[in-house]
Amino acid sequence: SRLVQPGSVLVLAARSGDELRALQDELTASEAGRAGLKVRVAVADVGRTEGLEAIIRSSAEAFSENIDRVILINNAASLGDVSRFTRSFTDMAEVDSYLSLNVSSSLCLTARVLQAFPGRGGLRHTVVNVTSLCALQPFRSWVLYCTGKAAREMMFRVLAEEEPELRVLNYSPGPLDTEMQQEARSRTADPEVKIAFSDMKTRGQLLTCEESCAKLMKVLLEDGFSSGAHIDVYDV
Amino acid sequence: SRLVQPGSVLVLAARSGDELRALQDELTASEAGRAGLKVRVAVADVGRTEGLEAIIRSSAEAFSENIDRVILINNAASLGDVSRFTRSFTDMAEVDSYLSLNVSSSLCLTARVLQAFPGRGGLRHTVVNVTSLCALQPFRSWVLYCTGKAAREMMFRVLAEEEPELRVLNYSPGPLDTEMQQEARSRTADPEVKIAFSDMKTRGQLLTCEESCAKLMKVLLEDGFSSGAHIDVYDV
Repeated sequence: SRLVQPGSVLVLAARSGDELRALQDELTASEAGRAGLKVRVAVADVGRTEGLEAIIRSSAEAFSENIDRVILINNAASLGDVSRFTRSFTDMAEVDSYLSLNVSSSLCLTARVLQAFPGRGGLRHTVVNVTSLCALQPFRSWVLYCTGKAAREMMFRVLAEEEPELRVLNYSPGPLDTEMQQEARSRTADPEVKIAFSDMKTRGQLLTCEESCAKLMKVLLEDGFSSGAHIDVYDV
Repeated sequence: SRLVQPGSVLVLAARSGDELRALQDELTASEAGRAGLKVRVAVADVGRTEGLEAIIRSSAEAFSENIDRVILINNAASLGDVSRFTRSFTDMAEVDSYLSLNVSSSLCLTARVLQAFPGRGGLRHTVVNVTSLCALQPFRSWVLYCTGKAAREMMFRVLAEEEPELRVLNYSPGPLDTEMQQEARSRTADPEVKIAFSDMKTRGQLLTCEESCAKLMKVLLEDGFSSGAHIDVYDV
């Protein structure tokens, strides 16, 4: 809460309105909320054009002339079907749909935010891409996830090259104790990769979202990263 | 032609039937054709499921039990609109369509070929992805191309990890004196990148397709590359 500047607004976007509103209530009642943080929600599927529009609309309503920093965090992603190997992906519609949600949406949302809130003297932008080790290293039976993360990371590297005024960060949050990890442990086709995920869980090596987000906050506050860089939670 | 083994078949796929058939005639009349190479054509748009099916159908017709090596060369690609910067890509349909042609199609074609011609004792597969320096390095105003090439390269790296029996090569052919380079020189939005392409042309640094393909042939014949590796024409 000591970090909450007057006039700060958090716009949360997700598909589930109930969960979003519960989080909104929780944050509004928190120390940050009591310190003045406004929390807005956009019930939106980022995989659809209407979803991107809803996010921009909510953000525009929340925006004021006093705001001096826009931070966009591109976190939405899906794991894809990890229960099969690359040679089983013969269906264009399945791959198209995966890439649309995981790649196109983050490009188009980022572009729309940059257009909707153009930089001016006092307004700066930071764009975060939530990336993964999978953007850099291939993992067996994770072809969609690795491909999507590699694509996104390159996309944000191009953006960083194009716009030196922007701060662009590819942040790899580490293995988080979330539903996605549960899916990874239970559904991964490759036995070695599957066991590696199970072992991380049983050895207590998964990070909480709070731990990883605290590291992300540290990186953003110190603001010393090279724009476009890939920064891993374990490097912070 | 000294490399043409009896029973060798080349299946060429592209959208333009006239140009394909002209090439078929040229190759059939060439030294390789006279040495026994059969040339088949599949008029097909790899961006469409029917196109992939047409390629598999033509390949199945060409296949015989004597064949001991299937080589799939994933070359089809488009440049994307390089006349604009990342912040202009707000249209999901445009990005979806680009990724479908440039990423999904190569994944699904490769998967279909592997399924249609399963490896057996005497049958081995080599899969080539025509990649680019753009898969590794960001270039300003080339966001679609860089993103697509990074995605493809990771996809083939995953395939290589999954299937040790396969030979997977990411081959970067260098700057070729083709229509795509003409488009790059004339339409690239970023002035420095644009000039770099013009300079390559005026200094005679563009490679002919024949030069680059000869290097690719050398790599394939020597067969010493590490499966999944990125090999650049200048490293051969």
